[in-house]
Parts: sequence; C-alpha cells; structure tokens
Amino acid sequence: MRRASSGVWLAALLCAIPLVAVAQAELPSWNQGDARSRIVEFVRGVTDSKSKDFVAPGDRIAVFDNDGTLWSEQPLYVQFVFMLDQLKAAAPKHPEWKDNAAFKALAAHDKAALAKLGQKPVLEMLAVANSGMTVGEYDKSIRDWLTNARHPKYQKPYTELVYKPMQELLEYLKANGFSNFIVSGGSVEFMRPWAEAAYGIPPERVVGSQQEVRFEMKDGKPVLTRAPKFDFVDDGPGKPVGIYRHIGKRPIAAFGNSDGDLQMLQVTAAGEGRRLTLLVHHDDAQRETAYDRQSHIGKLDKALDEAKAKQWIVVSMKSDWKKVFGFEK
Amino acid sequence: MRRASSGVWLAALLCAIPLVAVAQAELPSWNQGDARSRIVEFVRGVTDSKSKDFVAPGDRIAVFDNDGTLWSEQPLYVQFVFMLDQLKAAAPKHPEWKDNAAFKALAAHDKAALAKLGQKPVLEMLAVANSGMTVGEYDKSIRDWLTNARHPKYQKPYTELVYKPMQELLEYLKANGFSNFIVSGGSVEFMRPWAEAAYGIPPERVVGSQQEVRFEMKDGKPVLTRAPKFDFVDDGPGKPVGIYRHIGKRPIAAFGNSDGDLQMLQVTAAGEGRRLTLLVHHDDAQRETAYDRQSHIGKLDKALDEAKAKQWIVVSMKSDWKKVFGFEK
Repeated sequence: MRRASSGVWLAALLCAIPLVAVAQAELPSWNQGDARSRIVEFVRGVTDSKSKDFVAPGDRIAVFDNDGTLWSEQPLYVQFVFMLDQLKAAAPKHPEWKDNAAFKALAAHDKAALAKLGQKPVLEMLAVANSGMTVGEYDKSIRDWLTNARHPKYQKPYTELVYKPMQELLEYLKANGFSNFIVSGGSVEFMRPWAEAAYGIPPERVVGSQQEVRFEMKDGKPVLTRAPKFDFVDDGPGKPVGIYRHIGKRPIAAFGNSDGDLQMLQVTAAGEGRRLTLLVHHDDAQRETAYDRQSHIGKLDKALDEAKAKQWIVVSMKSDWKKVFGFEK
Repeated sequence: MRRASSGVWLAALLCAIPLVAVAQAELPSWNQGDARSRIVEFVRGVTDSKSKDFVAPGDRIAVFDNDGTLWSEQPLYVQFVFMLDQLKAAAPKHPEWKDNAAFKALAAHDKAALAKLGQKPVLEMLAVANSGMTVGEYDKSIRDWLTNARHPKYQKPYTELVYKPMQELLEYLKANGFSNFIVSGGSVEFMRPWAEAAYGIPPERVVGSQQEVRFEMKDGKPVLTRAPKFDFVDDGPGKPVGIYRHIGKRPIAAFGNSDGDLQMLQVTAAGEGRRLTLLVHHDDAQRETAYDRQSHIGKLDKALDEAKAKQWIVVSMKSDWKKVFGFEK
C-alpha cells in the first residue's frame, strides 16, 4: 500500500467529520460496531448521488418483519395471545373445537405443538371465530384488547414492547428517503392500528396475512364483513409474494429474525446493486429472551446459516444494542 | 341577510384572489363549470386547517378507476387486446380452447358475448396462458407489447390515450397532499410499468386484479413464477375489498366511469366528513366515443342513476373538458 501524503489524510479527515457527526446523532441506541457501521455505510452509499451504489428515492424500499424484528414475540406471538382470548370468548359457540388440535395447543400454551401445526390451522379457526364481523367491529376489538392487555413479564401494554434501536433505524431510513414497509406473518388488521405511532408506518405500508372480506349492503349501508376463510398467509415463501403483490418493487433492504424471513432476505439479496440484509439475533437473556435454533417461536436456524455463509449482518441484541426497550432506564 | 360593509367585501375579495389565481393555474384543460368548481371547493375545504372539513394529509386518500376513467377503454379494454395477442400466440399449445366460449368471443372481438361472460373466464384462460413465466418475463412481455401496439383509431401507443384533464387532476390532488391510488379491474402487472410516467402513481399504489404467483428456487436463484389461477378480481364489489386489503383507510375521494365502480364510490361516500365522488361520462362521440347505459364495455347505468340521486359529480367529457388527449391540437 502506498502511503498517502499528510495533506490527503487531512482532507479525508475533514470530509469525514460532518458525516460521522450526523451518523452519531442517528441510531443513538446502537453501540459502535460492525452492525451499525455497515448500516450507516450502506445508507451513505445508496443516498450519495455520486456513488455507483446510488438508488433513486422511489426505489429505496425497506421491508421489516414485525414479530421478533420490531417487537417482542416471546413467550408467544402477541397476536396469538389476542387470538386465544378471542377463541376463548367464542368457544362456547363452537363445541366442535373441543377436539381441534390447534385449539387444544393454544389453550394449553403448548408452543411445541403450535410450532408443529404451523400458523394455518390457528388462522383458520380464528377466521371462523370472527367471521360475520364488519371490519370496523373487528378493528375495534383489536384496539380494545391492545388497550387492556399486558405482557406477562414486563406488565406493560404490548405496544411498548417495540425495540428502541429498530425504531431509530426506521426513522433513520425514512430521513434518508426510504419507504419502510412491514411484511409480517401476522394479519394486517392486527398491526395497522398501532404501526404508525410505533414505527411511522401508515396502514397502506403494512403487508401481512389476510382473511377474506366481503362487500355487502347492511341496513342500506355498504360494509365489509369478515368471511370464514384465510386467503393469504404472508410467511416464509409467502413473504416475497406479499411484497410482489403489494409493493411491486424488489426491496433494497430487508430485516428479519427468523427462518420465516429467509425467502424475503433471499429475494432482496438477489437484486442487482448494493443490498442490506440483516437478522436480529435474540441472544440477550437478561433484557429480553435468548433463543434461536431450538425455539418454537421465531426459530432461527437455516437463516442463521445462510446469513453466515453470505455475510448478512447479524445483530447481537446483547452487544449491538445499548437499550432493547424504550422504557429501560 | 345582513349587508356587509364594503370593507368586509374588499377584504374577502383580496383574500380570494390568490386562491382563484392558484386554481386557474391548475386544471387548465377543464372548462369553468360545476364539475371543476366542485372539485376545487372540495380540495380547498379538506386542505384548509381552519375548515371543519379539514383532513390530515395522511388521510387524503383518492382512488381512481383506470379503464375509461384515466384512459380510453374503447373499442376494447387495452388489456383485452394484449390478452388476445397473448392467447393467439399461446393457442397452438392449447387445442382445448377451441370450444371455450371466452376464447371464441375474444377472437371474434364479440363485445356482447364478452360482456355477458364477464372478466373471470378470460382472466382464467390468460392465467393458464402465462403460467410458469417468472414475473420478470411477464413484465417484459407487457412492456414489449406496449411499445409496439397501436390503438386502431388513433394509431398512437396506448399509453398516449390517457385523459389530459385527469392527469391534471391527479397532479392537482398530489400537490394538495393527497395520496392517489389506482383501483382497477385490470391486473396490477399491466398497469405498473407505465402508471408512474402517465399518472405519477408508483407501483405500490396500484391496486388491481391478481393472478397467483409462487416462490421457487430456479438454478439457485429465488424467483416468483405465475401460477394458473386468478386469485383476486378487483372489480365491482371487489374494489372496496381491494381498497381495504391494500390501503386500509376509507378514501375521501373516488373517481370512476362505470357500474364496476359503483361499490367503490358507495364506500367512499359512506364515510363521515366531506367526500368527493365523481363519474366521467363518455358523451363525446367526436373526440372519443359516446356510450353509457347500453355499452358492453364500461357500462354506466346503475351508477349513473345513483350519481343523479345522490348528487355525485358527473363530468361531461364533451362540455367539461377542453381537451381529451394530450396529443390534440
């Protein structure tokens, strides 16, 4: 390597100062380190109009998984807790559920059985439970539940269990001309009521699983009612489908935490040009929950191998984050 | 009524001048008249933070039908012409189509038969024709076709058959903080390649009918391929469903031209607060095509009755528009 003159170094240093200053003000809950540096370098590259990596603002699409990536999913997906409450309330009207494996697993909080069954039978049962409701009534039932429910460990409303560093990341990307989307296995209705306040993501940028709804006139008024059928599961290989249907552009940045996000990250990484692919690794037993390959909820196994093989960013919650939750002292 | 002092009138007049001046610069292809005035008054009402009708920018959702509302749909929906070319090319591989009613109607340009059959059998046949293609290949086939195809009457590329006054309306709404969405019976893939250039509407704001796509690995690369199944028809009662699934907010303004837009306008009108509901009436046989209640394409019958009963705006292309197309002298 040739030694540069001190003048060149000085110039480089002076040029770097404002960038570093800006970057310091951003992402304050992230420790200095490889993950943070690579995020900041990526954003600089795609937003610098003189860079070969420049991407026009309209194409700066970033997709985020929700459960386990933007907020906690332990000890059980929040929507499962909501569903369980809904199903318990509906059970007297559905004696046929008594022998339903998914219902039994839910009632027993049997995570192993739930993981084995997958989301589909649970979603199907739920689709039956709330079918006939108008979408307005269903929205209200979710909002009411979110107001009253508390996380068993933290005794906080679930909407406070969002990760502070990820909120900062969303804000940082938005300030740099990105359009942030949620792409989640959860249902759109369950995220829309609070995603804008928590993440700055409006309802039209929430992609998720969808129950069928039908248009009808009710007392002379046009309404949409929920039908007893799930018609799209936005998880695993469904995520790239949801992105295609809803966004219609290949993301340049994707953020996940489990094997259910693998295909979304693969599709993002497969595009031409610079890409950011990141997994949140739950390795902080003290501030949150430590889990990966053996977990029934948010299992991270194949995606972790692929991340290592392809040098995707793996964020250690323990060492990369100063804070996990906003309510921490 | 009390007479106001001349000072009050003068003040009111002075205040009004800049607004009128702005409005004049906008919508230049619209004649002065009831339709134009009501549009401008609506936009002033919902954007004036002191007005009781004020709507926050994030909730200023406007939805536009495409065929017959933003561009021409005569003598045949443009996508039908594309489909016909696609089906002709695929026909040798599908001898079973010989006796298919939809194929025969398409090949004969039999609009009466097509109208009677509805979009579904045509979409289904098409779904078979292009299944197995990756979404990238399909996108390319559409772009290639659009580059080469010409409208039989105007001998122009179809993308020039967009209505100039509606382009101005889209721009006017956007400048006033609205988010414009297309909500069309056509398929999303057919609109996305050109909607941004023609209407300023990016791919993620195009809502339409959808063929199923599937994620798979092909030569080690993740791709989406088209499956032989249509899984959502965004027309008539499907439009409010598409809006709910994709946008998640009730629009405050809706623009259509046919009975296929009726439910979208009903749902928009049913919201609380000020609403703008508008139908484009094709009454200009000279510059375009005159049709309504008896037409097989873009039939406007029930929605016209409802518009009259509920005082929705009905735009006369003949008298409300100075120009229909941008290429007119």
